Amino acid sequence: MASATPRIRFRDQQIEMAHGAGGKASRRLIEGLFAPILFDSPSEPLGDAAHLSIDGARIAITADSFVVSPLSFPGGSIGELAVNGTVNDLAVSGARAEALVVTFVLEAGLSTQVLEAEVSAMGRAARAAGVTIAGGDTKVVEHGKADSMYITTAGVGRPIPGLQCSARSARPGDAILLSGPIGDHGITILLARGELDLEADLRSDTRPVLEMVEAVARVAGTAVRWMRDPTRGGVATALNEFARDAGLGVYLFEDRIPVRDEVRGACELLGLDPLHIANEGQFLAVVARAQADAALDALQQSPGGSGARKIGEVREQPACAVLASTPYGGTRIVDMLVGDPLPRIC
Amino acid sequence: MASATPRIRFRDQQIEMAHGAGGKASRRLIEGLFAPILFDSPSEPLGDAAHLSIDGARIAITADSFVVSPLSFPGGSIGELAVNGTVNDLAVSGARAEALVVTFVLEAGLSTQVLEAEVSAMGRAARAAGVTIAGGDTKVVEHGKADSMYITTAGVGRPIPGLQCSARSARPGDAILLSGPIGDHGITILLARGELDLEADLRSDTRPVLEMVEAVARVAGTAVRWMRDPTRGGVATALNEFARDAGLGVYLFEDRIPVRDEVRGACELLGLDPLHIANEGQFLAVVARAQADAALDALQQSPGGSGARKIGEVREQPACAVLASTPYGGTRIVDMLVGDPLPRIC
Repeated sequence: MASATPRIRFRDQQIEMAHGAGGKASRRLIEGLFAPILFDSPSEPLGDAAHLSIDGARIAITADSFVVSPLSFPGGSIGELAVNGTVNDLAVSGARAEALVVTFVLEAGLSTQVLEAEVSAMGRAARAAGVTIAGGDTKVVEHGKADSMYITTAGVGRPIPGLQCSARSARPGDAILLSGPIGDHGITILLARGELDLEADLRSDTRPVLEMVEAVARVAGTAVRWMRDPTRGGVATALNEFARDAGLGVYLFEDRIPVRDEVRGACELLGLDPLHIANEGQFLAVVARAQADAALDALQQSPGGSGARKIGEVREQPACAVLASTPYGGTRIVDMLVGDPLPRIC
Repeated sequence: MASATPRIRFRDQQIEMAHGAGGKASRRLIEGLFAPILFDSPSEPLGDAAHLSIDGARIAITADSFVVSPLSFPGGSIGELAVNGTVNDLAVSGARAEALVVTFVLEAGLSTQVLEAEVSAMGRAARAAGVTIAGGDTKVVEHGKADSMYITTAGVGRPIPGLQCSARSARPGDAILLSGPIGDHGITILLARGELDLEADLRSDTRPVLEMVEAVARVAGTAVRWMRDPTRGGVATALNEFARDAGLGVYLFEDRIPVRDEVRGACELLGLDPLHIANEGQFLAVVARAQADAALDALQQSPGGSGARKIGEVREQPACAVLASTPYGGTRIVDMLVGDPLPRIC
């Protein structure tokens, strides 16, 4: 096991786009500024949702703001993202979303038609995910003080029976499962901006992952060590955080990671690594070796899970890092996302 | 009792500042657009927090976004407001805040010093209110796509024992209690903008009202019919909403409503009604006549409650409206806020 992680200090003089990208700069901001001031127990401030006890009942709570640009894109829109993102943060923390509260920051001049389309998208996504919208709040700022609209969704949920996730419970030999092809969301947003002379038949993967998580939970229970939805920062960042929190290494079989040709092509052209591209409808699970095949089977047979794969395993070394096998028989270190190549993808 | 309220339709072509002001336009947006699409039971969509049952336990949940400009002002700042606002929304819904989750939308270029000051203000306010900050999220948007920072706080709480508020339980003769002087927050923000050639020794009233609410709950229990913190739209808007929801009239003794000279003077100069000005540390309670004196006594004796007054009473008529006695012996109709004379005050 690795020694205690050194405390990060936030020394940047001002906030840059990279601080919102979910990679190294975000982690520095959270661990170096937010956590020491705000969180009583800074042990897992980067978890997707907090679990706490109210009146004898265990509940989970989370909140995310959504600032995606453009507002709508092939396969989804900010409203759908805002519901699914929060449902998924609860799901991978081991909880079923019960109720959401939503807040809007609207830019004066926003067309009612655009707003209504997004509110309708939220309503549809909430019904699809089986979650109630219990209330909300609306603020309006002057034209030029926002970009059409920003949405924040907070959610409460109840724990999924049988799960007890913690990166620290992981052991060498555990399998790393991925629910489907990566990079669809991030590359779709990039193409939807029209800044690149690129076209591809690609759609955002935004969807609730709750049913898939529950399928895994039913067969693997406490053998599920850890889950995460690899959104900003992608699979590489999520697994680096796992490796660090677990004090163990992650070994990826790179040729087993599902990536669509369109995503791979765009990444090659742009010099990006698909492992750093955001996803909105995928999740990673670390499952004890003995239950891994059953968990993968359950995942593949649940709706939307046919593309699930075992993409790697937990190893003793390299502690706190992620290694990937390359097509040429060698290995490479896979780092967290650095900088912000694709701003405002969620 | 009044007949059923006619359904409001939202016909505005685009969003204007008034839709975020908490008055008539906000109500039209919520009831005419958000509620029919998002809320299963649109009965009380304007309540400060939703109460629901998770795993056998009753919890309350709420969320608010904060976009106040300027970020800091005499007596407070956006970070403090963001904590107190959510604690207070829970309190007046009859719940004690247990945990908050906070999200930030930051404008690229924001100075770290400014951010750290607000995060520290949130930490202090949370400790003062006895609430934990359990997690959060940060997004960064390009320079010019926000105004320094917007904060959203969601909160969960547990019901305060003995309370069972509903506007529909109100009866003619019930007393209307107010916790202290009105208009301090709104006028402080207005002056802090420096656009007016006005100065006054005035501070925002931002504070948690939880202890005062609990003091009232202890002595009056189920005799507390309804509570609300009169933020955007002020006392006038909150009481109009109460009157409409109760199907009863509100009669205000205008000379008993505490208003500081500085607030009254600024309002006279600007042609504003103090009853329309936002407060951040006050609350209104409708209490059954028999328990009203005891409730007022408890309120006045709780910390920060010495300025509390009985400002009016519930009457049969005018149904669904608010009437105030004028200094000249007559009465006037007090309407909800129309338009947005003081944008972005919270």
